[in-house]
Amino acid sequence: MSRALASFLCALCVPCGEAAAATVDLIVRNGTVVTMDRDRRVVADGAVAVDRGAIVAVGPAGVVARSWRARRTLDARGGIVIPGLVNAHSHAPMVLFRGIADDLRLMDWLQKFIFPAEKQNVTAAFVKTGTRLAALEMIRSGTTTFADMYYFEDQVAEASKEAGLRVVAGETLIGFPAPDHPTTKDALAYSERFLERWKGDPLVTAAVAPHSPYLTSPEDIQAARALADRYGAPVLIHLSESPDEQRQVRERYGKTPTEHLRDLGVLRKGVVGAHGVWLTASDRAILKQSDVGVAHCPQSNMKISAGVAPVAEMLKEGLRLGLGTDGAASNNDLDMFEEMLTAALLSKHATGDPTNAPAAAVLEMATLGGARALGMEDRIGSLEAGKRADLVVVGLDHARVVPVYDPVSHLVYAAKGADVRQVVVEGRVLLDDGRVTTLREAEVIGEAQRMRDQVRRSLARP
Amino acid sequence: MSRALASFLCALCVPCGEAAAATVDLIVRNGTVVTMDRDRRVVADGAVAVDRGAIVAVGPAGVVARSWRARRTLDARGGIVIPGLVNAHSHAPMVLFRGIADDLRLMDWLQKFIFPAEKQNVTAAFVKTGTRLAALEMIRSGTTTFADMYYFEDQVAEASKEAGLRVVAGETLIGFPAPDHPTTKDALAYSERFLERWKGDPLVTAAVAPHSPYLTSPEDIQAARALADRYGAPVLIHLSESPDEQRQVRERYGKTPTEHLRDLGVLRKGVVGAHGVWLTASDRAILKQSDVGVAHCPQSNMKISAGVAPVAEMLKEGLRLGLGTDGAASNNDLDMFEEMLTAALLSKHATGDPTNAPAAAVLEMATLGGARALGMEDRIGSLEAGKRADLVVVGLDHARVVPVYDPVSHLVYAAKGADVRQVVVEGRVLLDDGRVTTLREAEVIGEAQRMRDQVRRSLARP
Repeated sequence: MSRALASFLCALCVPCGEAAAATVDLIVRNGTVVTMDRDRRVVADGAVAVDRGAIVAVGPAGVVARSWRARRTLDARGGIVIPGLVNAHSHAPMVLFRGIADDLRLMDWLQKFIFPAEKQNVTAAFVKTGTRLAALEMIRSGTTTFADMYYFEDQVAEASKEAGLRVVAGETLIGFPAPDHPTTKDALAYSERFLERWKGDPLVTAAVAPHSPYLTSPEDIQAARALADRYGAPVLIHLSESPDEQRQVRERYGKTPTEHLRDLGVLRKGVVGAHGVWLTASDRAILKQSDVGVAHCPQSNMKISAGVAPVAEMLKEGLRLGLGTDGAASNNDLDMFEEMLTAALLSKHATGDPTNAPAAAVLEMATLGGARALGMEDRIGSLEAGKRADLVVVGLDHARVVPVYDPVSHLVYAAKGADVRQVVVEGRVLLDDGRVTTLREAEVIGEAQRMRDQVRRSLARP
Repeated sequence: MSRALASFLCALCVPCGEAAAATVDLIVRNGTVVTMDRDRRVVADGAVAVDRGAIVAVGPAGVVARSWRARRTLDARGGIVIPGLVNAHSHAPMVLFRGIADDLRLMDWLQKFIFPAEKQNVTAAFVKTGTRLAALEMIRSGTTTFADMYYFEDQVAEASKEAGLRVVAGETLIGFPAPDHPTTKDALAYSERFLERWKGDPLVTAAVAPHSPYLTSPEDIQAARALADRYGAPVLIHLSESPDEQRQVRERYGKTPTEHLRDLGVLRKGVVGAHGVWLTASDRAILKQSDVGVAHCPQSNMKISAGVAPVAEMLKEGLRLGLGTDGAASNNDLDMFEEMLTAALLSKHATGDPTNAPAAAVLEMATLGGARALGMEDRIGSLEAGKRADLVVVGLDHARVVPVYDPVSHLVYAAKGADVRQVVVEGRVLLDDGRVTTLREAEVIGEAQRMRDQVRRSLARP
């Protein structure tokens, strides 16, 4: 019997003598599997069989064991097996600016710290080290895919690939000189080379990333759209993050940022708008109709007092809604467990209704919702035969996660990034009982410390 | 030279040949010491010398080393040394109900889950195991003192003492039959025996704990006050948590809960009002004038949509403001690091001003502020010679806490409970590089799992 057929039968849970002979690369067993499949199955003593980077079967451990033999077994030790978390909006290398300045108004923060620090420090080496450091943090806290917009995105892609993570990466197109490109025209040319270079890569999805409706000109946004169309690439953009942005766009174009993008012909599947705090009902209808994704970033929004996104509404309306950390300079980490908790709490607080943003919906935002926001739901976001093998084992051996009444609720309200025990991306084990297999952790941390010293010195200069 | 004199001189940082001969129980070295003393000193390469349960010196490592020799050294390995965190409001044994029911309206949650589960399961053994489980979680996440109101408080006190934690414990006086006492009169009699039993204990401070202005009668609240006065004991009470409470108290007494307590003659130093969400400006003036403490519980408040406490105002007005997790059934953990982060983010969000609740103020709420709320600032809350030796080492060896620009900001925005490496209470090492020294972790967790099964069965019964 062909591997594909065996996989198909197993997915249907039909035990089959012949399939029992099939050997796969990896079986994850001895855990509760939260599949996030169409039926939102939770399999109490479940297993996931993985071969050649893909999931070939998900089901009760006994059934999987009858059909598949594994070259390698990963013991979840009674933990919870979930789809890898999807961080739908980040600026990964900014972990090197983690805590550079806090408790400031947005403009003070940007103009006195972030922009000067970026201008003086952001180089290819900085971005490479920053992304490696971010990758360590993401792997250790269960993120397997992240969407990134920053500078030197080749280095982001290279470091992510080296770490074994899945990334959707886009070079930021911003209306002023960036650390790597003096003009947006240069950044667009770079973007095209970037798209060409990473075409067909199994882990790196090259995107185009106009910064925002207020910092990127209409012409540049349209050029970005055209480029993305030529390569079938996603488009990453900030959208309706702050009241200031709303005001600026309204003054300049007489529209909301979403209406502005619609009128520029930019909106379609594969576009991800980050934040979406100030989306109106009519904006949301436009985004829904255009199949556009939204990345909700509650911690960053709270930290800079940007407002609160209409999460309950977006959930009700069925938008492609993911969850993101934003950069670690305004968070100050890349921990998607904390982001899930904050998303649930903030929505309940903001609406005055504790039934809003229930655990299941929030877990979905961090997994399948993020995949949908990025237009990747055919490949990632749930544990189902045929999808790529991105999964995370959450340990339940720590007092803080004992006892468990409901695994889904537990993932959002009790489990922490630190409970992540194993991480698999594209079938490869990136975290194995506390050890990151792909990066030299001590070296990366040492290099990050040195860059911190350099950043400090640069800010001290008059 | 006497030990006391040597201690005094060392506190003044006067190196002294004779003092060099003095031997102390413990020196914590090789860390950045965030003292929270009057000058909010942060000592870059600092050390803390501890003897007979008390801090005898805090200062630069070299100065401390010249004056003191240690029987035991604790290596902070470049981490941050902070005063032990103070959880100013909790119901520790409720960790056994962690996640029993989430995403519900308060009354559904209480009446369908919490009250029935408590009625059928809360016994002395349940409280003992629950407190042990809570103690494991608290120790591992850096809490050294917690204020507790629940039932079977003798078991809470016994288990805390066994764990080595400092506790302010009060038997809840509630207007309906409690798991351990059919009437408030019985609970008051128990409270008196409880106060008598723990008199003078170095770790256990017995308190009196009328539940709230809406569930405890005026007579019982006054009886509680009289009892507390006889023993010089703290009074723990819920105060202005929900709009419902405000309405009920207004309807019954024509006043705010704070005015009601003032008029009952209850308010003075040592009273801790938990939540304080709906405090008016006039309420806050009353609390300030009466020296009453407030325990801010942002995660619980958000989760049940109770509203947001006027933190910026309370900070400005100089109230005795601490931070609490509330019970783990509405949180769902006892992690004070997460609570600090949420306190900072929620205040910024609620006020629209990102300069509100800055890291230094939030760290103070979780340390010295909590001590002040509990009326214990002469003994705990900061690292200063003369105070009890309650301290925590936060490790900086994990990618998620690299790099560090500002240690205080880092503690609030980046560090997690899981970064806690060492914990000392009353000079005793409770957590030693990841190992809890006072409790048998596996046994406690096993027992908690069994109790979870029992709770589940009890809720399934018709």
